[in-house]
Amino acid sequence: MTFANVGTLGAAPGRRDDLVAHLTRRSDALSRAGCLLYEVGIGDEPDTVYVMELWTSAEAHQASLQLPEVRDSIAQARPMLSGATGGFRFQVVGSPLRDPA
Amino acid sequence: MTFANVGTLGAAPGRRDDLVAHLTRRSDALSRAGCLLYEVGIGDEPDTVYVMELWTSAEAHQASLQLPEVRDSIAQARPMLSGATGGFRFQVVGSPLRDPA
Repeated sequence: MTFANVGTLGAAPGRRDDLVAHLTRRSDALSRAGCLLYEVGIGDEPDTVYVMELWTSAEAHQASLQLPEVRDSIAQARPMLSGATGGFRFQVVGSPLRDPA
Repeated sequence: MTFANVGTLGAAPGRRDDLVAHLTRRSDALSRAGCLLYEVGIGDEPDTVYVMELWTSAEAHQASLQLPEVRDSIAQARPMLSGATGGFRFQVVGSPLRDPA
């Protein structure tokens, strides 16, 4: 069942754009791991980066966190992060844009 | 610029599944209005429905709220809602799943 992960990542002072560049760096490992959608954005909150992800399953998302590429990426991001996080996760059950599966 | 709207909708007691059914009812008006993605889901929080939307622009999203179909849908949903809402909006600036535009 498609899994959604939506969140905010606080950026260290002055590092928001670096964090955006890091998170949007092309990663075919994510697709291979079952990532269907991964949008990164900015909004009204300063020093905040927004992410919106869809995965083939919650298990695929969880497993991706153990991939060497993803672990390296998380380690590289650490100095850009303030530590503040927010958001939520859910199981997708449908969409008004398509007929039921 | 692609606009993202992500949120939680509190359901009136016992109405969560009705609200999910309502929100996932096929609506070609949304596509015509510039809605690119509209995923509806459920998660750990009881009486809560999650939505994740992408639109061609913030203006397209705002304009959609004035469409007769959308106004009717919002009016029909009202008895299913508790009034609790959460979430955030952002401008998409990129994705690791594709090359920069």
